[in-house]
Amino acid sequence: MKHFLTLDDITHFQDAVAEAQALKKNPFANENLGRHKTLGMLFFNPSLRTRLSTQKAAQHLGIHTMVMNFSNEAWALEFENGTKMNGLRSEHIKEAAAVVSKYCDMVAIRAFASLNDKVKDEGEEVLNKFAEYASIPVINMESATAHPLQAFADAITIKEHSTKKRPKIVLTWAPHPKALPHAVANSFVRMVKNLEADFVIAQPEGYQLNAAITGNTPLVYNQEEALEGADFVYAKNWCSYTEYGKILRTDDEWMLTSEKMKHTNDAMFMHCLPVRRNIVVADGVLDHPNSLVIEQANNRTYAAQWVLKKLLQNG
Amino acid sequence: MKHFLTLDDITHFQDAVAEAQALKKNPFANENLGRHKTLGMLFFNPSLRTRLSTQKAAQHLGIHTMVMNFSNEAWALEFENGTKMNGLRSEHIKEAAAVVSKYCDMVAIRAFASLNDKVKDEGEEVLNKFAEYASIPVINMESATAHPLQAFADAITIKEHSTKKRPKIVLTWAPHPKALPHAVANSFVRMVKNLEADFVIAQPEGYQLNAAITGNTPLVYNQEEALEGADFVYAKNWCSYTEYGKILRTDDEWMLTSEKMKHTNDAMFMHCLPVRRNIVVADGVLDHPNSLVIEQANNRTYAAQWVLKKLLQNG
Amino acid sequence: MKHFLTLDDITHFQDAVAEAQALKKNPFANENLGRHKTLGMLFFNPSLRTRLSTQKAAQHLGIHTMVMNFSNEAWALEFENGTKMNGLRSEHIKEAAAVVSKYCDMVAIRAFASLNDKVKDEGEEVLNKFAEYASIPVINMESATAHPLQAFADAITIKEHSTKKRPKIVLTWAPHPKALPHAVANSFVRMVKNLEADFVIAQPEGYQLNAAITGNTPLVYNQEEALEGADFVYAKNWCSYTEYGKILRTDDEWMLTSEKMKHTNDAMFMHCLPVRRNIVVADGVLDHPNSLVIEQANNRTYAAQWVLKKLLQNG
Repeated sequence: MKHFLTLDDITHFQDAVAEAQALKKNPFANENLGRHKTLGMLFFNPSLRTRLSTQKAAQHLGIHTMVMNFSNEAWALEFENGTKMNGLRSEHIKEAAAVVSKYCDMVAIRAFASLNDKVKDEGEEVLNKFAEYASIPVINMESATAHPLQAFADAITIKEHSTKKRPKIVLTWAPHPKALPHAVANSFVRMVKNLEADFVIAQPEGYQLNAAITGNTPLVYNQEEALEGADFVYAKNWCSYTEYGKILRTDDEWMLTSEKMKHTNDAMFMHCLPVRRNIVVADGVLDHPNSLVIEQANNRTYAAQWVLKKLLQNG
Repeated sequence: MKHFLTLDDITHFQDAVAEAQALKKNPFANENLGRHKTLGMLFFNPSLRTRLSTQKAAQHLGIHTMVMNFSNEAWALEFENGTKMNGLRSEHIKEAAAVVSKYCDMVAIRAFASLNDKVKDEGEEVLNKFAEYASIPVINMESATAHPLQAFADAITIKEHSTKKRPKIVLTWAPHPKALPHAVANSFVRMVKNLEADFVIAQPEGYQLNAAITGNTPLVYNQEEALEGADFVYAKNWCSYTEYGKILRTDDEWMLTSEKMKHTNDAMFMHCLPVRRNIVVADGVLDHPNSLVIEQANNRTYAAQWVLKKLLQNG
Repeated sequence: MKHFLTLDDITHFQDAVAEAQALKKNPFANENLGRHKTLGMLFFNPSLRTRLSTQKAAQHLGIHTMVMNFSNEAWALEFENGTKMNGLRSEHIKEAAAVVSKYCDMVAIRAFASLNDKVKDEGEEVLNKFAEYASIPVINMESATAHPLQAFADAITIKEHSTKKRPKIVLTWAPHPKALPHAVANSFVRMVKNLEADFVIAQPEGYQLNAAITGNTPLVYNQEEALEGADFVYAKNWCSYTEYGKILRTDDEWMLTSEKMKHTNDAMFMHCLPVRRNIVVADGVLDHPNSLVIEQANNRTYAAQWVLKKLLQNG
């Protein structure tokens, strides 16, 4: 593993999940592995779970962390090649990535989708240019189209709570007042393909995810039908992919409620957080013993720790 | 001690002051106590002394710290239960507190009073909801109505400089161009009740503090009369409590001056800082050898260290 | 060395460069020197290289760091003595510096020039008042008129790449859309005076640096003439010093290009970064193997480490 940009960078996913579970049992077992090593964490967007869980994972491995809110603490970055830099951007990614590589042994980056330029977002400019110009491993802490640390943590959580050989997993779209990226949903879909599971995606018309990612996953346009017999229900909002960045509806018909959960097989509820209560999902579902959202957040630490450990051991 | 929310969480206050003095003599004596432990520090407001002294205290105990400016680095929090979260607040305190509890062993929080809603401020929403929903100890780094770490440090400072069995201590209101919270004054009043002291509060009409806190402490409306024979003078501005959040006067009649200090028994001068020179207090008083303000700030480290140590040992 | 405010605080400069090179070879050789010590890093302006390289240097020495973006995380500072502080500034430098001295063993400060008040900028108010009121060593992380850590790193870089006993070094002004301070250029000029070198400064009319700093250094008004036979070319923009803070021209005649570099003796290219590509310098020069900009950034770590080590050993 050279970088951790997408889930595809994990070659043996099931093994990785098992190894992350072992780290969780004994988090400080490798606390000298990161001695003299430094992780730079660069944020272009807000973060609570990712910020704290990645720092915590680094602490478990004895890695020193340097955290920067890049947007306001450093210089605005230019990503285009060959431009005359006479605008607001005062540093080119070429220099920024090369320089950070001199001070850090690994660099983790969060840079959300713009949601106004599909081509640019899918080009993953920030993440990929860091990977291109850095001479150290780059870690994706949520990029325009992917959130692999979240999906990895979700896989750990599903494994911990799965009682069946082949559970039914439903990813269901849910309402939200703001246009949200597809990153979490994309990575969840990609991750589930590594599991033995019956998997369906439920969404209203107009909210189909990128078909190149969903592939032959059954798409269901009736939420209750999709929930039927589910063992895990993952709710998540995303904006329209076809009408890129648009919010097509704001009614609460697709909000996940306790009533709807009755269609499931006493399913576990999942969400990546932060979640808007009584918009995305009703209080009753979130506060139910079957809600795994806090444990998903907890497992972010061990997903990050697995990635950091692997990159250290390769280096 | 489960949390450190107010001074009442310290059961044997005099012992605590003595123990904090012992920590000051040998700050690194317990430097392995916090091994593998993490303190989250969440700021909803600016901070200099609290930020640095609490980090320093953690360092003395070998505790790892993760500092967040919550307002701009994370997600805006919702505190009400049962609301439809369709506004600007994207994460509920229930999730935020539970999630932080997974990454940290203790969490310290700074959240000032709004000064526009007395009932809400006195409900101590931010601090109390963190304490309610977190599964780890919560530490008050100044809340809407209390600043117990400051008052604890003030007690250490008074003990260090007291030459009498029963000194006279005066808390005097002083002018300020902005509406300031009552937190420091409230906690100072509560703290002094644990000391053997003659204590009076001086303030102009309209600036009486919450009577539930001042109790039977003599209130004096003439500053010079109050200062008569004082051994310690603590100056502090606060806005009106009865006309909640209002500034009733901006003249400098109540500014503490060297002239006024002549009424005292060569009193020591105290203030929590930051202080506006020549508005709250004249240069001559602040720059006088009897000023204890820097030592108060220094003692913030040992007050915080006592609290962290106690919470670690309980845990 | 009591403080590190300018290059003059290094008494034996050539020795310092050699010692920094030794630190670079074995960065963790003194990793216990900073045990129990704390460095405060206070930023009044953005920073990438300085922020990370100074933290990295501290890590090499085992020094604990506390980083603050002073402008938005703490209180606005008053620097004037005797004023009535009834405006926006709520803390005086006297208290801030004294208080920070209680929590830290050293404090590093970044505070750029205003560029609208020459007298004030040359008074180095922020840096000098910190040095005046702090009881701990103060380190300049770029002040209004000097950036000695950069110049120190530049000296290391020149020494590493110099093949001649007496190289020709050219500092050339270059265009920029914004008014930039003179700090980097000033410190570079001062530093080169410690080297055995033929040194010339090239700039258009109106862009002469402070004559008190340039002294008898030859000033050349024709860039190509200045570049003739150069071994090192350092490009840097600065605004007008005589018409203080003004931008006198924005054309690209003085941009450094590959064509112009042909006049040199296959010169090494240097710049402190961040750099605006194709405005200050053309892509071809920056991306050429002779560009030392990333190694200059790398050497910032060892410049900072030398300073921190020296201050620790004095203390």
